[in-house]
Amino acid sequence: MAGNSIGKLFRVTTFGESHGPKLGCIIDGTPPGLEISENDFQKELDRRRPGTSKYTTQRRELDKITILSGIFQGKTTGTSIGLTVKNTDQRSQDYNNIQKLFRPGHADFTYYKKYGIRDPRGGGRSSARETVMRVAAGAIAKKYLYTKYGILIRGYLKQIGNITCKLKSWNEVEKNPFFCPDVKQINNLNLLIKKLKKEGDSIGAKIKIIAEKVPIGLGEPVFDRLDADLAHSLMSINAVKGVEIGDGFAVVNQKGSEHRDEMNKHGFTNNHAGGILGGISNGENIIATIALKPTSSIKKIGKTIDLHGREQKISILGRHDPCVGLRAVPIAEAMMSITIMDHILRHRGQCSKTY
Amino acid sequence: MAGNSIGKLFRVTTFGESHGPKLGCIIDGTPPGLEISENDFQKELDRRRPGTSKYTTQRRELDKITILSGIFQGKTTGTSIGLTVKNTDQRSQDYNNIQKLFRPGHADFTYYKKYGIRDPRGGGRSSARETVMRVAAGAIAKKYLYTKYGILIRGYLKQIGNITCKLKSWNEVEKNPFFCPDVKQINNLNLLIKKLKKEGDSIGAKIKIIAEKVPIGLGEPVFDRLDADLAHSLMSINAVKGVEIGDGFAVVNQKGSEHRDEMNKHGFTNNHAGGILGGISNGENIIATIALKPTSSIKKIGKTIDLHGREQKISILGRHDPCVGLRAVPIAEAMMSITIMDHILRHRGQCSKTY
Amino acid sequence: MAGNSIGKLFRVTTFGESHGPKLGCIIDGTPPGLEISENDFQKELDRRRPGTSKYTTQRRELDKITILSGIFQGKTTGTSIGLTVKNTDQRSQDYNNIQKLFRPGHADFTYYKKYGIRDPRGGGRSSARETVMRVAAGAIAKKYLYTKYGILIRGYLKQIGNITCKLKSWNEVEKNPFFCPDVKQINNLNLLIKKLKKEGDSIGAKIKIIAEKVPIGLGEPVFDRLDADLAHSLMSINAVKGVEIGDGFAVVNQKGSEHRDEMNKHGFTNNHAGGILGGISNGENIIATIALKPTSSIKKIGKTIDLHGREQKISILGRHDPCVGLRAVPIAEAMMSITIMDHILRHRGQCSKTY
Amino acid sequence: MAGNSIGKLFRVTTFGESHGPKLGCIIDGTPPGLEISENDFQKELDRRRPGTSKYTTQRRELDKITILSGIFQGKTTGTSIGLTVKNTDQRSQDYNNIQKLFRPGHADFTYYKKYGIRDPRGGGRSSARETVMRVAAGAIAKKYLYTKYGILIRGYLKQIGNITCKLKSWNEVEKNPFFCPDVKQINNLNLLIKKLKKEGDSIGAKIKIIAEKVPIGLGEPVFDRLDADLAHSLMSINAVKGVEIGDGFAVVNQKGSEHRDEMNKHGFTNNHAGGILGGISNGENIIATIALKPTSSIKKIGKTIDLHGREQKISILGRHDPCVGLRAVPIAEAMMSITIMDHILRHRGQCSKTY
Repeated sequence: MAGNSIGKLFRVTTFGESHGPKLGCIIDGTPPGLEISENDFQKELDRRRPGTSKYTTQRRELDKITILSGIFQGKTTGTSIGLTVKNTDQRSQDYNNIQKLFRPGHADFTYYKKYGIRDPRGGGRSSARETVMRVAAGAIAKKYLYTKYGILIRGYLKQIGNITCKLKSWNEVEKNPFFCPDVKQINNLNLLIKKLKKEGDSIGAKIKIIAEKVPIGLGEPVFDRLDADLAHSLMSINAVKGVEIGDGFAVVNQKGSEHRDEMNKHGFTNNHAGGILGGISNGENIIATIALKPTSSIKKIGKTIDLHGREQKISILGRHDPCVGLRAVPIAEAMMSITIMDHILRHRGQCSKTY
Repeated sequence: MAGNSIGKLFRVTTFGESHGPKLGCIIDGTPPGLEISENDFQKELDRRRPGTSKYTTQRRELDKITILSGIFQGKTTGTSIGLTVKNTDQRSQDYNNIQKLFRPGHADFTYYKKYGIRDPRGGGRSSARETVMRVAAGAIAKKYLYTKYGILIRGYLKQIGNITCKLKSWNEVEKNPFFCPDVKQINNLNLLIKKLKKEGDSIGAKIKIIAEKVPIGLGEPVFDRLDADLAHSLMSINAVKGVEIGDGFAVVNQKGSEHRDEMNKHGFTNNHAGGILGGISNGENIIATIALKPTSSIKKIGKTIDLHGREQKISILGRHDPCVGLRAVPIAEAMMSITIMDHILRHRGQCSKTY
Repeated sequence: MAGNSIGKLFRVTTFGESHGPKLGCIIDGTPPGLEISENDFQKELDRRRPGTSKYTTQRRELDKITILSGIFQGKTTGTSIGLTVKNTDQRSQDYNNIQKLFRPGHADFTYYKKYGIRDPRGGGRSSARETVMRVAAGAIAKKYLYTKYGILIRGYLKQIGNITCKLKSWNEVEKNPFFCPDVKQINNLNLLIKKLKKEGDSIGAKIKIIAEKVPIGLGEPVFDRLDADLAHSLMSINAVKGVEIGDGFAVVNQKGSEHRDEMNKHGFTNNHAGGILGGISNGENIIATIALKPTSSIKKIGKTIDLHGREQKISILGRHDPCVGLRAVPIAEAMMSITIMDHILRHRGQCSKTY
Repeated sequence: MAGNSIGKLFRVTTFGESHGPKLGCIIDGTPPGLEISENDFQKELDRRRPGTSKYTTQRRELDKITILSGIFQGKTTGTSIGLTVKNTDQRSQDYNNIQKLFRPGHADFTYYKKYGIRDPRGGGRSSARETVMRVAAGAIAKKYLYTKYGILIRGYLKQIGNITCKLKSWNEVEKNPFFCPDVKQINNLNLLIKKLKKEGDSIGAKIKIIAEKVPIGLGEPVFDRLDADLAHSLMSINAVKGVEIGDGFAVVNQKGSEHRDEMNKHGFTNNHAGGILGGISNGENIIATIALKPTSSIKKIGKTIDLHGREQKISILGRHDPCVGLRAVPIAEAMMSITIMDHILRHRGQCSKTY
């Protein structure tokens, strides 16, 4: 059934396959009067774009955004915003050798069983290519949240394999292809990626996303909790297998006296909660962490079956990241921005001040 | 805004405060003809009920379900099912001493800032008491999924503090108050809980939920993914701070060749994915893990502020679990059941076979 | 599937069959701090209640509302409001003679084909009894809209058979059992109803609903138009077969120069549009008219079939209005109030002023 | 807020302004495997296209559809379908003289008050141009409903001014520019339109839409009724001021013995209900009638105000239909198709047979 939309008051609906002519989305619910330029979109799209470094997939897409509606003379009109991006570089022939095989770790098998289709051109809607439109929609949310509320949403690479990165400098994050905030680790990351490329293998990663200056009161106490909606939007990113808010799984071995964030007249003395109490934002930084599985498309030979259930060997050449996590930061920022934007709009009519 | 519903085709909407007269819910979308008795509800409600052991909160509620509509002569009619449960035991006086304080780790502060209300009777909608209705709704989903598809959804205590439990026997799970599947650990759990009670402190926990025999093809590839919807419904449970599907955060240090589940003519040779590929169920067991923070209501003295921002000391007496995780298993089973039920109904019209 | 909710930000979900123990609803999305008493509900419920005059069905229900949640110390808390009403007077035996027949004009046949159930106790969810909860939910919307915006939503009987009523006095409307604003017609209405009772027949009616002081800007230009949402909520009332906004079907024979509402510096010089232009409220009175079919349950003998398809004669005794329209005014007011309330909450975050 | 989507399981979301570069839509929820070609879209788009006759607006648009996703090798894939159409002919200069005036009967004023924008290029989202995408989406629903269920959805001109047309021949409908089924009236229609063009005035119209072979059981008894959803989708069409199901407003003066459709062993002996009982389809033809107001854009001079509230005279030249109703048939067919398609998908999981 219909399943390509996210958000209630700020709703993003996307379309487009990895190897179709275009990708697109409709962003519905942006208030009027927000100044937004193609450049605001491009800046974010360029951050996620493959081929921007020798570490990420060599597929080159200009990802040039086309604005079709909802923005007039540089400002949002309040109506639905239509965006498209061309697929300029589709080497589907890369896929010819495997188009009848189910790639292990991919959606090929489930997609085929669900829809009765094995798209020979690639992953169809399951391809990471689809995230282009999430980033485009996120650009509007980011701009709105920052312009109107000063909310700043940023992410960085927290871990890859057994290499962990400390948040030493936000500036550093944009300076290297890993979104790594810890300059000391850049070299180790280079070596790890080189090694994996040689092995024809891949590795998982952990990403941390932080939203600063989020107002108190976003989220509803039961089902439409801010943390639950963030879990939904972050888990909806390809390859994500885990989501944490605040201390996340570390709480399993914490004591109540240690975890509960105490308060004094200046506010909270700690932020184990990750900025959310009872599903509602508490004014502290919103902190989420996600785990991304290793790229499934690898050279290393694996076992699988074909459309007829016959056992086969598979080795995926194509152009693929040795670590999908290396491109996930802008996508995760976008998803968090979309969800917080949606809750900001919901909140307006609901916070006690308004009655 | 409206935020007390979950699900699209199978939708559950709840109401009721921890210390109001009744809790209730409307379960909308159950197909007609499902045999369901009060006993089916009671069985599940009794599993979550506090006061069933000396290890969980001593608040005693009979939690007797009343069916008001949607079930006639022991069968669902296809229309909305109305259920209520009385709050029979409300010692709000337990709260008198703290009703002007914001309890650390609780929603008191965010709730107050959002709604302008500090419910002197307890946590209002943020109380774990609200989960009674989740379990009641889950009972219908569980019964339907098992009767019609043979889907079995069960959970157990995986870890509490640094004590981990192996899945040795499903039978054992129902025999002890910890939902622990590992008889060897029962004694250690007893000792840990006793120690915490003496200290007036609490501890976190990890719960694992498994759904067996889920058909292939549930979930949509982009936003309405089965994993994303599970993340939403599980993260919406009070005190949950993390959700994993399959290997979860362990993937960060896995290689692609290790993580991707290979296939042979008998099917998948492994289940690192936790039964979901590209957001769509693959026929393997659906496996989710959640982390629950330690109970915030503890005797141990903590620092907080009152409604006027004055710094205060707080010690919460009341009757509280030393570990909320000990009651979470039936709730997590219910939430997974509700989400899979919703997707089963969505799927019917969508699987390629039906066209 | 789930189909018992209406509204997005202000959402009402109902349950309960005509002859079950209770009817109930959950009202989700009411802002906190609204003063509302049981009396506010009762006032509206009493207006719709059958048995309040010798002209309407003799089934006597006290329709006493019970507030289960969401209202504390006379004020809304901002969380979901749970309400129930007992079915105190269920003479289902009245139905025994026809419980195997499909009553012409009723939902018995479609209900049976859809759900496989022929509720021997009456119409189940299709009974007008279900509207009790619409009126209860409408009472909150009405109170909120009037208290906070001065919006006044009222209706009256416009026509019944060939007797038309002029809007001579709003006060008169509440003084007679017909909600007739035209004292001159009361006697004719009495005679018509008496005549119909003697014939064992019934008649249709036309109701007009007017909302005053609705702010400019409610509604979206394309699908979520205010007029479209009003059409949905009004057409969802039992027995309604037609909905008009402003001049409605009269426009078919109007010229553009005649219909278009011109403007001068004081505003619109006319209101053919019924207060809505391009789906958006224009500040004039919102005017809607609905047509209600004649009661289908009549003594007069008719032809039908039974559950086995055998042809039968049917005469419905029970206690039924000779004109369902006579009870529709409070219900229609409630539905318009619910829809405008929903749009007021949607609008808050969207009007140009807020950016 | 987000308001550009319609439907739940079959959801259509549109974007695009009358004078922007392109219009587009995303159609989400189409089952996989439906054969659909550009020609299927074009056939419907050509039926609504302006400039196809000397009686309708002279604005010439090729309205050539571009399929961007969701259809592969002539079949739907089951994922979201992206479509766009170029705006090839935008004489916005036609609007220059009135771009600071609020056109009476138009959304200019409400749009301006809501969004703070007066689009100098025309009606923005409020333009009838937006309906192109409704017709494109409707083409998929029509094809699906006919191919899979034999459901045939057709409409015709019932009345314009005081000229009424009898349904004499469905073939005739496609042969004249009025969608008139009554060849005897063609000449009168020609004369009426000529007369109006000379007067610089316009006229309203009434359209009838009929769906044949709709299965029994579509719709839910309370809020998501089939008639209520049809009222919503039909009232959402520009210029529609009234919606009737079956006998509609004629029921006001009907008796119960006359209106209720009796049954015999062959089925219903009549169809006053218009194929819907208690909100659920009964297997008879679904019949809806809509009233469209006269075109607001007319040469005839009228009074209005400008952006600064100063009183002005206005005469609209541009290229406009003397009767918007003349183009409404394909649009109304599309909206009914979209709504029935949505309910067919909802129904699949709900009809008693499937349990």
